[in-house]
Amino acid sequence: MRTGDETMTPDELEDLCRAAVRGAGGGPRTADVLARATVAAERRGRSSVGAGHLLDYLSALREGRLAGEADPVVTRPLVGTVLADAREGTAHAAFEAALPELDAAARSCGVAVLSIRGAFSAGELGWYARRLADDGLVALVAGNSPALMSAFGAPAAVTGTNPLAFALPHPDGVRAFDQASSETAWVSVRDAAARGEELPEGWALGSDGRPTTDARDALDGALVPFGGAKGSNIALMIELLAVLSGGALSREAAPFDRGSESPRLGLFALALDPNAFDAGYSERVEAHLARLAQAHGADFGRRRPPLERILLEPRIRRALADAAGVAA
Amino acid sequence: MRTGDETMTPDELEDLCRAAVRGAGGGPRTADVLARATVAAERRGRSSVGAGHLLDYLSALREGRLAGEADPVVTRPLVGTVLADAREGTAHAAFEAALPELDAAARSCGVAVLSIRGAFSAGELGWYARRLADDGLVALVAGNSPALMSAFGAPAAVTGTNPLAFALPHPDGVRAFDQASSETAWVSVRDAAARGEELPEGWALGSDGRPTTDARDALDGALVPFGGAKGSNIALMIELLAVLSGGALSREAAPFDRGSESPRLGLFALALDPNAFDAGYSERVEAHLARLAQAHGADFGRRRPPLERILLEPRIRRALADAAGVAA
Repeated sequence: MRTGDETMTPDELEDLCRAAVRGAGGGPRTADVLARATVAAERRGRSSVGAGHLLDYLSALREGRLAGEADPVVTRPLVGTVLADAREGTAHAAFEAALPELDAAARSCGVAVLSIRGAFSAGELGWYARRLADDGLVALVAGNSPALMSAFGAPAAVTGTNPLAFALPHPDGVRAFDQASSETAWVSVRDAAARGEELPEGWALGSDGRPTTDARDALDGALVPFGGAKGSNIALMIELLAVLSGGALSREAAPFDRGSESPRLGLFALALDPNAFDAGYSERVEAHLARLAQAHGADFGRRRPPLERILLEPRIRRALADAAGVAA
Repeated sequence: MRTGDETMTPDELEDLCRAAVRGAGGGPRTADVLARATVAAERRGRSSVGAGHLLDYLSALREGRLAGEADPVVTRPLVGTVLADAREGTAHAAFEAALPELDAAARSCGVAVLSIRGAFSAGELGWYARRLADDGLVALVAGNSPALMSAFGAPAAVTGTNPLAFALPHPDGVRAFDQASSETAWVSVRDAAARGEELPEGWALGSDGRPTTDARDALDGALVPFGGAKGSNIALMIELLAVLSGGALSREAAPFDRGSESPRLGLFALALDPNAFDAGYSERVEAHLARLAQAHGADFGRRRPPLERILLEPRIRRALADAAGVAA
C-alpha cells in the first residue's frame, strides 16, 4: 500500500544519488558529478538518462569498468584545444576538470574544443552543452558509444547511438536539444523485449541483419539510424569527432553494461563565444526563436520549467537506497 | 542530329564557365571561383549543383542580386575567429579570401571558425569542406538558405534547406559528405512540377500546410526536413551556426532566384587540425573506414574517381555559350 507523498525534492534526490555512488565505490568527485547530472536529467523529466541510468553507473563501479576514484588529466596543448583523459572515470568528471580551461580558451580565441578520451558512457549529452550555454557560450557536443547501431544499410552494428547536443544562451533559460542518432533508444527495445511487445517497423534489425519487429531478436541485432543515409552520415560524423584525441571507436569499445573493461569512449565539445562574432547575435536569435514559436508553433530547444518534485519508480528508488545503505 | 563527342574536358568546361560569368557581368575573381566550383561539382557527377546551378548565378549577376565585383572584407578579431563579409558577392570568393587566415588560425589554435555574412547562396557546400580537408584539416561547414522548408511540423516554410558538409583528410582522397536538411531537393520538386509528375509521399507540404504529392501545390508550400524532429533540430542548428556573424536568417533572406536584392546569407566553417589532438588520428580513422567498408559495406564519404569528361545537357551548354558569347 502506498502512503503519503513519495516524491522527492531535487536536494533529497541528489543526496541519495551521492550516497549511492559512494556506496558503490565512487569517490567524492565521481559521486558529486553523477548526482548532479542525474538530478538535472530527472528535473527535465528525462528519466531514461536519470536515476534509472545511474543504476548502470553503480553496476559499472562495482564491476570495475568505471573507475570511481579517477583523477582526470587536463592539458591545453594549443591555445584553442583542451584535452582531458578521463582515465576510465566518468566523462562528467573530466568535463568538470576541463571546464575552466575550455571557458577561458573560448573567450580568448572565440572558439575552443574540448576532446575527452578514456571515458565511461557520457549519459545525457545535453548536460554538457547546457553547462557551456549557462556560461554564455554556444555549444555543440558529440559523443560516441559502444556499437549498437547499423549505418548505411549495414546488416550489423557498426557504430554507437552517438548522441548530439546543441545549446545556446537565452535570456529565459538555455535553448538546447539532445538527441541520439538512432531512430529509437536502446532502452526502448530492451523494455519492449522485457514486456514481450512488438517493435514498430523501422526501429531495428534482427540477428540476421534484416528489419525486424521482434524485440528479442533486435537485442541480438542492431538499431537503425534516424533519417536513413543522412542520419547515417550524422552518426559517423559524431563518432569521428568524438574520438579526436584517442577515444575508442564504437566497434572497439568495451560494453558499458557488463565486464570489467572500461569502454574508454571519447567526447567532443565545441564552445563558441557568440560575442566574438557579433555583439547582436543573442538578440537576433532570441527574436527569431520567439517568432518561430508564436507564428509557426516551431519551438526550438524549448525549455520546460524544471520539476520541483521528482517521483522515482519504486524499483529504482529501492536500488539507490540499497546502494546508499539507507531505508528506501 | 548529334555528331561526334559532345563531352568536354574539365579545362574546357572551366574556360566556358569563366567566360560565361564574365559575360554576365562577373569580375575576374567571381568568374574564377565560380568556374572552379562548377567544374568540381560536375567532375563528381553532381550536376544539380554544377553547370545547371551556374545558370542561377548568371541570372543573379544580370539582375543585380549577386555583386560580381565584390571585394570581400576579411578580419580576424580573435586568434581563432575569421570573419568575412562577402559584400553581396559569392560565398566562394569570401571563402577564398579568408582561407589563408583560416588555415593559419586552425594550425596555431588547433581549431578555428570562419563565419561569412552577406553572401549569395553557397552552392555545393562540400566544395568548402573539401578545400579544408585538402589542407589536412577536419572540416564541418554549415550554410543557411532562403526559407523553403518546414520544421517541427510547422505548416509553412520556416527555414532553408540548410546544407551540412563534413570532410576529413584521407590518403586516397578526402572523405566527405554534403547533404541538405530537406528530405528532397527543391529542384526535384520543381522538375516534377514541370513534368507534371506526382511527388512521393513525405517530400512536401502544400499551400494549405498539409502533406501533398501534388508538385505544383508543393511549390507554393514547403519542403519537409529529413528525419522528422531530429532532422528539424539539425536544420535549425545549421541556421543558428550559419548566421553567427550577421548573415540573414532564412526567413528574412531575399530569394536567390528573383529580384535585385542580395539574400545576404551566412556560412559557418569549422576547421580542426587533427594533429593538435592526436598524431595517430588520421591512421586510426583510415583503418576504421576501410574496415567498415570491407566488412560491412558501409562506405563513409567514399570518393568516386572524378570524371575526366563531362557531358552537359544541351540546354545548359547553350545557355553558358550564349552568356560567354561563343558558339555552343
